[in-house]
Amino acid sequence: MAKELKELTKRAENYSQWYNDLIVKADLAEQSAVRGCMVIKPYGYAIWEKMQAELDRMFKETGVQNAYFPLLIPKSFLSREAEHVKGFAKECAVVTHYRLKSSEDGNSVVVDPEARLEEELIVRPTSETIIWNTYKNWIHSYRDLPLMCNQWCNVMRWEMRTRPFLRTSEFLWQEGHTAHATREEAEAEAQKMLKVYADFAENFMAVPVLQGVKSETERFAGALDTYTIEAMMQDGKALQSGTSHFLGQNFAKSFDVTFLNKENKPEYVWATSWGVSTRLIGALIMTHSDDNGLVLPPKLAPIQVVIIPIANKPEQREAVTEKLMPVITELRKKGISVKYDDSDNKRPGFKFADYELKGVPVRLAMGARDIENGTIEVMRRDTLEKETVSFEGIAEYVEKLLVDVQQNIFEKARKYRDEHVYECDNYEEFKERVKDGGFFLCHWDGTEETEAKIKEDTQATIRCVPFAYEQTPGVDMVSGKPAKHRVIIARSY
Amino acid sequence: MAKELKELTKRAENYSQWYNDLIVKADLAEQSAVRGCMVIKPYGYAIWEKMQAELDRMFKETGVQNAYFPLLIPKSFLSREAEHVKGFAKECAVVTHYRLKSSEDGNSVVVDPEARLEEELIVRPTSETIIWNTYKNWIHSYRDLPLMCNQWCNVMRWEMRTRPFLRTSEFLWQEGHTAHATREEAEAEAQKMLKVYADFAENFMAVPVLQGVKSETERFAGALDTYTIEAMMQDGKALQSGTSHFLGQNFAKSFDVTFLNKENKPEYVWATSWGVSTRLIGALIMTHSDDNGLVLPPKLAPIQVVIIPIANKPEQREAVTEKLMPVITELRKKGISVKYDDSDNKRPGFKFADYELKGVPVRLAMGARDIENGTIEVMRRDTLEKETVSFEGIAEYVEKLLVDVQQNIFEKARKYRDEHVYECDNYEEFKERVKDGGFFLCHWDGTEETEAKIKEDTQATIRCVPFAYEQTPGVDMVSGKPAKHRVIIARSY
Repeated sequence: MAKELKELTKRAENYSQWYNDLIVKADLAEQSAVRGCMVIKPYGYAIWEKMQAELDRMFKETGVQNAYFPLLIPKSFLSREAEHVKGFAKECAVVTHYRLKSSEDGNSVVVDPEARLEEELIVRPTSETIIWNTYKNWIHSYRDLPLMCNQWCNVMRWEMRTRPFLRTSEFLWQEGHTAHATREEAEAEAQKMLKVYADFAENFMAVPVLQGVKSETERFAGALDTYTIEAMMQDGKALQSGTSHFLGQNFAKSFDVTFLNKENKPEYVWATSWGVSTRLIGALIMTHSDDNGLVLPPKLAPIQVVIIPIANKPEQREAVTEKLMPVITELRKKGISVKYDDSDNKRPGFKFADYELKGVPVRLAMGARDIENGTIEVMRRDTLEKETVSFEGIAEYVEKLLVDVQQNIFEKARKYRDEHVYECDNYEEFKERVKDGGFFLCHWDGTEETEAKIKEDTQATIRCVPFAYEQTPGVDMVSGKPAKHRVIIARSY
Repeated sequence: MAKELKELTKRAENYSQWYNDLIVKADLAEQSAVRGCMVIKPYGYAIWEKMQAELDRMFKETGVQNAYFPLLIPKSFLSREAEHVKGFAKECAVVTHYRLKSSEDGNSVVVDPEARLEEELIVRPTSETIIWNTYKNWIHSYRDLPLMCNQWCNVMRWEMRTRPFLRTSEFLWQEGHTAHATREEAEAEAQKMLKVYADFAENFMAVPVLQGVKSETERFAGALDTYTIEAMMQDGKALQSGTSHFLGQNFAKSFDVTFLNKENKPEYVWATSWGVSTRLIGALIMTHSDDNGLVLPPKLAPIQVVIIPIANKPEQREAVTEKLMPVITELRKKGISVKYDDSDNKRPGFKFADYELKGVPVRLAMGARDIENGTIEVMRRDTLEKETVSFEGIAEYVEKLLVDVQQNIFEKARKYRDEHVYECDNYEEFKERVKDGGFFLCHWDGTEETEAKIKEDTQATIRCVPFAYEQTPGVDMVSGKPAKHRVIIARSY
């Protein structure tokens, strides 16, 4: 067994350590020399590229166009929207100078005090302010609306406690920013993009999500409503995986963006914004992976099928390779990404463990005996089941198996999630049980006080008011006051 | 004629103004609120996306993988490579603080003096330092080599004089960073990537380029050799369009990156880096466009074919649309991007001018008369030639026409370039003629003094020692000293 694999912490021992270990051992990412910022290694980045390609296609199908807005935002822009600045000022990286000069001893560089900026610039934590300042020039009439732009970029939020992919000072994301003529259209857009995220999470990532709306406390800074998709990790904690915000006219008012309506009267523009980030890679890892390493959904796996020849002698290797080449060609024609690993400096056992660690969904192995028997060995990563099947028709077999793996890991994750969603009406019981994870459906009186008390007592937070749940009024389990509906409460990342 | 078009400055009047006008009027980009930083608008960004897709494919075909390294670089990293810091310290945006707080009057935010970073961070002007600091952990043995990573990202160089796409404080680019076991392999890699750039410039952008090697003065800061592709704009000025650097062991030594060779002895790693940026969009615009607007090469045009129905009455419009739909489907099946513009709030004449301004390579127009006659009108943007052709087989016709347009604009640009490359042996003549643009092939004695004098006298610089030019020794036209070869001297952007 490969050394790397032996050293992977077991989930049951220490879930958090398992996650950190896995990221390093599977070559996804590592800490950089800059506090809280990670290096995304080629294998991790390949997953992100697959995610980007699908999401980008889905956005464009709704009429969204990509654009690019500046990295640096004048400090004064942040202050224009009162809630927005409250939310982000505490974690802004600030550019104050534009030049370095040699130190006196000539051995290093120091900030040149003469190159101080007149106004400090913020490294964007999100781009509503600079984008709405730009939209002011692009929007004049109802004919200019809707305006729907997205950008793929890096953002920075100076976080005190960071974890790879889940919370880093710099992260990669996409941020969509749309402008509309009516409140209804903007609300519909925010909800539509949430559905795009949910579709992507479930049908590509194989991560089941609950859709809902955030409480006021948990809203995006400057939004009237924040919609969210919440996924459950294998330790029962929630991971907010994507958010879509109905921003009302807040940013239009702050940046004075109006349009002439059909009656030629000026009105403020209605806005949305929505984003998902490299955090999705964290969700992917924590939902499916196991003590042997990553489990990747076939639709997002950089390598979908790995093929390993089993041969001690060069002539055996050649015979196996000759047999396999047409299969590789056939699989690639089907759009399946195949890696043929005939490197001779590692043993098959090492390769097996390594590709398990890397989460390759399907592994094929073939030796001289298989050629004689007309067979090939197939291993599926999700269940680790191995079988020997007929070599004839193996490409179709693998193609179907990939669909099956994708489906199976989704069902498995959904089953786990569903088994860990509980209705709960008793606060003492809640406090005890929430320690072990899970989503708790509880009546909430709608007050910030109750929300704060729950958080203080249990570290759990209100994740959302779920959409797909038949709601009945009841009694808040904490305050005893009347409650309109149940919310999902959970500990979270 | 559309208002926007009428206002486009003519090239002959003011080439520089024409360029700036065109960028704004064709909706490519605009200045942002942040000095020297631009907003890339959807139409401009769509060109960049097309460029990225092709280049990314070409890089990956050579075995390069994408990754992502941090935006912010510790200030001390810059000092490690002596030449590198000299080249970049004067244009670095510096992050000094990580938090803002409310001002005393509560109406704005100010930098929180208590949130000062222990060590200032630089917004990356290029990533050699942080990447080689990372490679130190990735490279141990000759088996880890070659290591070939690329990243698509934003970088920042605080430029005093900026122009959209050509020179902006923030720009988008890709930077490849490779590590090799031998000098020969690294040199070959640097040259191979230059060939990839030249291939992309000529076969996708339709921009002819001269390949060559830079003089020591013009080298990338920290490189042993900088290879370049130089394009000629329509005013005869040179535009450096992509560079590939052989970095020797400079960064490996600065960051202590060694590997054990096959004899188990430690050696420093050999390096290259190479990059192209959104500057390529500037090259594209300035090479092909004319007084009517953009001329885009079909292979990179976001819209390759626009189809405009000519109809005054709704029933005419319907008849034309019905006729055209199968053609649109057929073109799209061929992988051609088609826009069918049947909007009824703009007249055909306005649309014609607008798509000319936007550089759409082929325009089709069809009216009731055409239906009767079994014809359709075709306009090619490069020559503005219009003809009425048979409707039958129009999809194949258009497909061939796109190939022809791509070829024609390349040939036209090459002809222009070739007509403006001169051998010159007399400095007085050179000084007179270089004002009008063009590339001058002149003998150079290889000294910095001569190079500096030429620049001072004429603003022209040595662009490169060209590869594809039969060299004979001669006499430096400035110093009269012996010269080994001719170099290309030109004014440049």
